[in-house]
Amino acid sequence: MQLSQRITHITGGGSDGWDVFYKARRMIADGEAVIELTIGEHDIRTDPIILGAMDDSARGGHTGYAMVPGTQDLREAVAERIQERTVVPTTYKNILITPGGQAGLFASHVATCNAGDRALYIDPYYATYPGTIRGVGAEPVVVRTHAEDAFQPRAEDIAAEAAKGAASLLINSPNNPTGTVYSAETLEGIAAVCREHDLWLISDEVYDTQVWEGEHISPRSLQDMSERTLVVGSMSKSHAMTGSRVGWVCGPEAAIEHLVNLATHTTYGVAGFIQDAAVFALDQGPDLEEKIAEPFRRRRQIAREILAEQNTVGLIPAQGAMYLMLDVRATGLSGEDFANSLLDTHKIATMPGESFGTAAHGHVRVAMTVDDERFAKALKTLVDHAQTLAE
Amino acid sequence: MQLSQRITHITGGGSDGWDVFYKARRMIADGEAVIELTIGEHDIRTDPIILGAMDDSARGGHTGYAMVPGTQDLREAVAERIQERTVVPTTYKNILITPGGQAGLFASHVATCNAGDRALYIDPYYATYPGTIRGVGAEPVVVRTHAEDAFQPRAEDIAAEAAKGAASLLINSPNNPTGTVYSAETLEGIAAVCREHDLWLISDEVYDTQVWEGEHISPRSLQDMSERTLVVGSMSKSHAMTGSRVGWVCGPEAAIEHLVNLATHTTYGVAGFIQDAAVFALDQGPDLEEKIAEPFRRRRQIAREILAEQNTVGLIPAQGAMYLMLDVRATGLSGEDFANSLLDTHKIATMPGESFGTAAHGHVRVAMTVDDERFAKALKTLVDHAQTLAE
Repeated sequence: MQLSQRITHITGGGSDGWDVFYKARRMIADGEAVIELTIGEHDIRTDPIILGAMDDSARGGHTGYAMVPGTQDLREAVAERIQERTVVPTTYKNILITPGGQAGLFASHVATCNAGDRALYIDPYYATYPGTIRGVGAEPVVVRTHAEDAFQPRAEDIAAEAAKGAASLLINSPNNPTGTVYSAETLEGIAAVCREHDLWLISDEVYDTQVWEGEHISPRSLQDMSERTLVVGSMSKSHAMTGSRVGWVCGPEAAIEHLVNLATHTTYGVAGFIQDAAVFALDQGPDLEEKIAEPFRRRRQIAREILAEQNTVGLIPAQGAMYLMLDVRATGLSGEDFANSLLDTHKIATMPGESFGTAAHGHVRVAMTVDDERFAKALKTLVDHAQTLAE
Repeated sequence: MQLSQRITHITGGGSDGWDVFYKARRMIADGEAVIELTIGEHDIRTDPIILGAMDDSARGGHTGYAMVPGTQDLREAVAERIQERTVVPTTYKNILITPGGQAGLFASHVATCNAGDRALYIDPYYATYPGTIRGVGAEPVVVRTHAEDAFQPRAEDIAAEAAKGAASLLINSPNNPTGTVYSAETLEGIAAVCREHDLWLISDEVYDTQVWEGEHISPRSLQDMSERTLVVGSMSKSHAMTGSRVGWVCGPEAAIEHLVNLATHTTYGVAGFIQDAAVFALDQGPDLEEKIAEPFRRRRQIAREILAEQNTVGLIPAQGAMYLMLDVRATGLSGEDFANSLLDTHKIATMPGESFGTAAHGHVRVAMTVDDERFAKALKTLVDHAQTLAE
């Protein structure tokens, strides 16, 4: 039986640079002691106090259908959090609760793109971005960034694609996979392009609590941008709740009303007891968020010290998020070949830059998601390995 | 800012017969004692033993990303349950776990319909059906059934629409809103149309544990149908887990592989601790399912006894599901006018048949979701009210 074009073309075909990742997973399944620096998952579990709040809610009877847009309490808590960070008036009517950030990305593209519309996104990119755009039947159009700009996008490159016609632009700052935090200048440039070319801006801000250098600016806070911006957020990274699948879209009221209609037909809401756990977690305030971000802040410092002692492996500034993007071009290898070689020789798994598009070729992404000691040791081994290859 | 055509057209526009429902909700919010017989939600909560299993899983550390297709345990448990009921070989590779049945309906239509494709569904229908089809960019095409057939669809009516070209047919048995359980003859006729016109059959079987008369037959078990059928199931109705949002799609392996790709981009999996709770619930076997279905079985019997004493209000057989479809045409009123009148006069809220399309005009749907005593009293009042109007 024939499946739809849309679903059979989501992955785009061809090698996607994930072979190293799957090889590492097979080695682990075979019992080998691989150090995994691949995936954006905390090395801690969801805090028991949050799980306690979830259990209290469930046993308290919050096990029936929750309202599709989200509970009033969670919508208000998220609105308050966003208003604090953007100084833009924000109420529950600007918020749709989604089963995770990815669901927010998908819904945002459904809301802004008709079938066949061009939807822009930035390379390097999080693995699901082009497939998300294809999944809604739109055409993914990539805008490359450059290692020499520390992967900050150039407004003129976005404008060149927008001029050919586009419905939306998807950005992500703090950025996965590069660790770049978009500067005020970058964001002002992006905002100007969106206004001039009448683009929706879909702003994936799931790493907004992981900023090591500079400041996270939400484009929702920029001039005339709240009316054309959909902010996608999540509890996954900020509160180590990846598995709970709870996130949101924040946007203009009219857009959220339509997104609620969409949610009625795609997911029919999010478990009430998970939403209650999320409210509890947000009520803990910035202290809990900082506690959860702290290991990555610490490991990023460890990495800077190790990398400062050599000049074979280059470090993109690593201003935010739980990843380091390392330039290994001095080895003469592609990111994929380097990652393969490192895995085969030292059983350390990293992600080739080529897993995230073409802009980060000759790089590898290192997730800072193992304990400090193993992390430092693995990073030293990576540097030694690069130096051996570069000789 | 302009939103996409797709999202702004999901609801289709016009009155949808839900005004009575919203009026009832407002009355309740204003503190009035309304008896709500509107929504398909159990009057019990999720069983504490299931919630205990969820808490054990979460505190046991299952709080990180679960595998996108679903946990191996839950996929296997669902496959086993379906194999037992259909005698069709079924493995975890035939199963995608989704965040609820609605997500399964949406994904199934994305998988089978390209933009603009005609997608058939049966009237009367569950409220989200046409919007789900519009939400994937396909064209909803309705096939009406008739009260005099007890709302069993006629194969020739489906064939007439299929002959004009269609990608899929969506059916639901046991049926919401009519309580009809499709007969073997009906299902064989539907299967023949699907084979002849090369249709995908999307079979919504979320009420499969609520059968009061006859037998639930899954079309997956019919000749040559497993290759063209996507079964949508859920823990919501069978295990009183509506708020947990966990369901599945069962289909051919190749379709499931693509549906997993889609899920990577729409939801990125389902909470692991919820999946563990679902495995625990399924492991309890049919006894728990029967215990949860029992109140509806009992109330259906109460209703039959009350309705047997008169002939103003007609009962569609009520073979399954948690609803009664009552024929109130003898009152001379539309379903909507009767429901409004009953709400205004007696503070009893029911759903007009017109909420579910055009086929059930002059009917009201009664959800059997309040305790036996209140249910019996409300039904007697409804009958008295109809008799007064009919005089």
